[in-house]
Amino acid sequence: MKILRFLLIFVPISIVGEWMHFSPTLMFVLAALAIIPLAGVMGEATEEISFYAGPRIGGFLNATFGNATELIIAFFAIKAGLFEVVKASIAGSVIGNILLVLGASMLVGGIKFKSQSFNKQSVEVSSSMLLFAVIGLTVPAIFTHTVAADLLNTRYEGLSIIVAVIMFGIYLMSLYFSFYTHKDIYLSESDQAVTPKWSLKKAIIVLIGATVLIGVESELFVAAVEPMTKAIGLSEFFVGIILVPIIGNAAEHSTAIAMAYKNKMDVAVEIAIGSSLQMILFVTPVLIFVSLFFTPMSIVFNEFELVALVLSVLIANRVSSDGESNWLEGVQLLSVYLIIAVSFFIL
Amino acid sequence: MKILRFLLIFVPISIVGEWMHFSPTLMFVLAALAIIPLAGVMGEATEEISFYAGPRIGGFLNATFGNATELIIAFFAIKAGLFEVVKASIAGSVIGNILLVLGASMLVGGIKFKSQSFNKQSVEVSSSMLLFAVIGLTVPAIFTHTVAADLLNTRYEGLSIIVAVIMFGIYLMSLYFSFYTHKDIYLSESDQAVTPKWSLKKAIIVLIGATVLIGVESELFVAAVEPMTKAIGLSEFFVGIILVPIIGNAAEHSTAIAMAYKNKMDVAVEIAIGSSLQMILFVTPVLIFVSLFFTPMSIVFNEFELVALVLSVLIANRVSSDGESNWLEGVQLLSVYLIIAVSFFIL
Amino acid sequence: MKILRFLLIFVPISIVGEWMHFSPTLMFVLAALAIIPLAGVMGEATEEISFYAGPRIGGFLNATFGNATELIIAFFAIKAGLFEVVKASIAGSVIGNILLVLGASMLVGGIKFKSQSFNKQSVEVSSSMLLFAVIGLTVPAIFTHTVAADLLNTRYEGLSIIVAVIMFGIYLMSLYFSFYTHKDIYLSESDQAVTPKWSLKKAIIVLIGATVLIGVESELFVAAVEPMTKAIGLSEFFVGIILVPIIGNAAEHSTAIAMAYKNKMDVAVEIAIGSSLQMILFVTPVLIFVSLFFTPMSIVFNEFELVALVLSVLIANRVSSDGESNWLEGVQLLSVYLIIAVSFFIL
Repeated sequence: MKILRFLLIFVPISIVGEWMHFSPTLMFVLAALAIIPLAGVMGEATEEISFYAGPRIGGFLNATFGNATELIIAFFAIKAGLFEVVKASIAGSVIGNILLVLGASMLVGGIKFKSQSFNKQSVEVSSSMLLFAVIGLTVPAIFTHTVAADLLNTRYEGLSIIVAVIMFGIYLMSLYFSFYTHKDIYLSESDQAVTPKWSLKKAIIVLIGATVLIGVESELFVAAVEPMTKAIGLSEFFVGIILVPIIGNAAEHSTAIAMAYKNKMDVAVEIAIGSSLQMILFVTPVLIFVSLFFTPMSIVFNEFELVALVLSVLIANRVSSDGESNWLEGVQLLSVYLIIAVSFFIL
Repeated sequence: MKILRFLLIFVPISIVGEWMHFSPTLMFVLAALAIIPLAGVMGEATEEISFYAGPRIGGFLNATFGNATELIIAFFAIKAGLFEVVKASIAGSVIGNILLVLGASMLVGGIKFKSQSFNKQSVEVSSSMLLFAVIGLTVPAIFTHTVAADLLNTRYEGLSIIVAVIMFGIYLMSLYFSFYTHKDIYLSESDQAVTPKWSLKKAIIVLIGATVLIGVESELFVAAVEPMTKAIGLSEFFVGIILVPIIGNAAEHSTAIAMAYKNKMDVAVEIAIGSSLQMILFVTPVLIFVSLFFTPMSIVFNEFELVALVLSVLIANRVSSDGESNWLEGVQLLSVYLIIAVSFFIL
Repeated sequence: MKILRFLLIFVPISIVGEWMHFSPTLMFVLAALAIIPLAGVMGEATEEISFYAGPRIGGFLNATFGNATELIIAFFAIKAGLFEVVKASIAGSVIGNILLVLGASMLVGGIKFKSQSFNKQSVEVSSSMLLFAVIGLTVPAIFTHTVAADLLNTRYEGLSIIVAVIMFGIYLMSLYFSFYTHKDIYLSESDQAVTPKWSLKKAIIVLIGATVLIGVESELFVAAVEPMTKAIGLSEFFVGIILVPIIGNAAEHSTAIAMAYKNKMDVAVEIAIGSSLQMILFVTPVLIFVSLFFTPMSIVFNEFELVALVLSVLIANRVSSDGESNWLEGVQLLSVYLIIAVSFFIL
């Protein structure tokens, strides 16, 4: 969304702020406001490059770099040892996509159109994959939560790596599925007619520049989390599960809502569910692998995160099963998100 | 159901009994037997008034006063501080509607007709709202069950009120949805041809009379709960989750079964699921608000209630998703209810 | 599958091994390898007899003796007091059928055929029965896990027997449903043209012989479990939940996969879900009843088993709801099974 571009002004402001030793709370806000438009620019550049790369490689690039911002923020958070923030932000990204993004899309679209329909078939593939992926994530967590803690430290790590490898394997196979064996399910006429607006060179330069700047801002952002939470009394958990996902996904969120407003509910649903799926099958294993170079992070989520994940996925499956949406469904999704956010904030 | 009217004889009997200091166990039974027909009379009077009020206001009256009996019983239970009975009766009403009422309707209807179908579309709206509503109720419960108890007392109340406000907001919006923006989904030809049997004056007098008498009987009933449970060794929890909902819903139950027997499965399913939905979105928040005038009641259900709620709602969604029912489905719903009731009775 | 017949050589080998006091680990493997083909032969003999018995009695025989091998193994395990192995093997059989058998069928079938469809209607009856059955099993477990342990010992037994009676009652009614009132749902043309290959006398003799030998081998197998687990450090729980079901169901597994390969996905799905259903509604109550002659076994499963059961059943319902399968769905089911198996193995 181009409307977010004016926020790019916060890129130089936040860098100046770091140099002038602004307070952590202010730096947290400035870095967050800088990341939002950068994520949008990176998404645009990836899309441009993918036009030149042809539908297969292009689709792969779009799919793989779709959550790059969350990946970069999480990378610096792992480096800083903020494992709880990282895991909360993975769960929060799924919850936010299913409840906040989908809810807002259905509400905004539903106010304009009485009822909006979307292609059940492709959404069902994604939402049932999401169910399996979350179940795969739930199993090791339940095991470890009920087994004595001292036994775990030694065996934790091995199980996390195995599960991460399985998840990543499914991710690769799902790309093979959607770009080779079953690509017809995903054919959408709307994407075909578009031509690139940028030259390939420009797109590559913009992508590299945006990535570097997101890296810089993420480092500022992560460095501000701990002192900021102490200063104003927010929990790190709340930052991870609510704030990080909103910042990392703002560009995608606004695209999904704009699509719903144009009655392209298919695209809005696919963004919300597809992005959730990628968080679990791609971002999570990559972060587990990356953490092996610093301190190994386990793949085990806490009870809050698990319950929120499982409930969100049940809702996603319920919503997708009838292939239709209206404003009341949007209100309900947003209400569940609101209840979750308020509970995390209060407790 | 007119057949229950002869039970009205228990209204004077129970009042005489109170005056003659009958034993609590006897008073419990007499008041229960008096409430059942009064609830039926109140329902009939509401329906008559709604004919005069026109379809919109009438629909609103029917929807809002549909669970008036439970609301009145719960009011006196809150006044008496029997919070566990109140919360158990909310959960029990949902479980009873989904498993007992729907199960009995499907069994009775299924014995007469090989297969009965109902309108999937309107049932799916209700059953998916029910899923969201129960999830909304589950979230604060899970948070509070896992957080240290001393932290809670101070913050409990605020969270309960916020969740109650959100629930009540969804309730108002769902009325707007079903009576304004999407009223065509609910149009059912069978309701249109009916004309009122009573004069408006008679209907209003009957409604007021029934409400007053239900109030009197509920006070007798609630007063008998504690001494009765001590005398015969039943748990208050069993009274709340099994007995109160059966008494409060008997009139509706018999209507649903009669409708199923006439092959109007649509109406039977709508009574069961709609009534459950109202318990959560209307009765529960109202009781939370009412409790603020006495001792504030939290919206947090215990594990048994939550599990029973979530499982019932999953079943409701499963059953409604194919738009068909048969006797075996009825037997299965009743069996799950039987297992729950026996477990609560034994433990 | 005739291909497994060469394994019959392990019947004499294992008996000789017992006589020569082979090590428990070796005896465990030999008895397991002997049971696999015997189960196949027993299945074949039952099928032959059912041709002579006509469709109704034949269908009943096939349904009831379908899990005879698991029943016999469990009988000897109960006699030996290995309750944990028995209960783990019930849960493991359901998990194995839904995830391993269905997953392998969908993968093998999906590699040959791009998309395979099956009759949604009959599968939905089975999968929703499975949901109700598992919920019925979950309720007493949740109650007992949260109530003080000393209260339980006295009341446990009664509740288990009541739940077992209800389950068995549903089983009998489901037979009445599928062979009398709604037999048309299950009519499958493929079964009609087949004629018996064996004489009735031969079939009966083979059935008796196979049953006796399975009994002998099961006794050897069960006797080896405890010393074997101690010798090589496997948990009895892992043996129950992973190994016993694979051994007991190997014959059925290979049939389901072969059917999927022939594009008869209907049959493959029905084997997997129907067999799971039978484990819960028929095998479990029978084992509870049988245990009354030795030491009464409770029907209460542990948390791992419950979570694995509930998740498998949610997956079964999700998978069956669209009436189609492809290779990626197969891979996902197998992945969830793999994660469960690895977790059980490591922890």
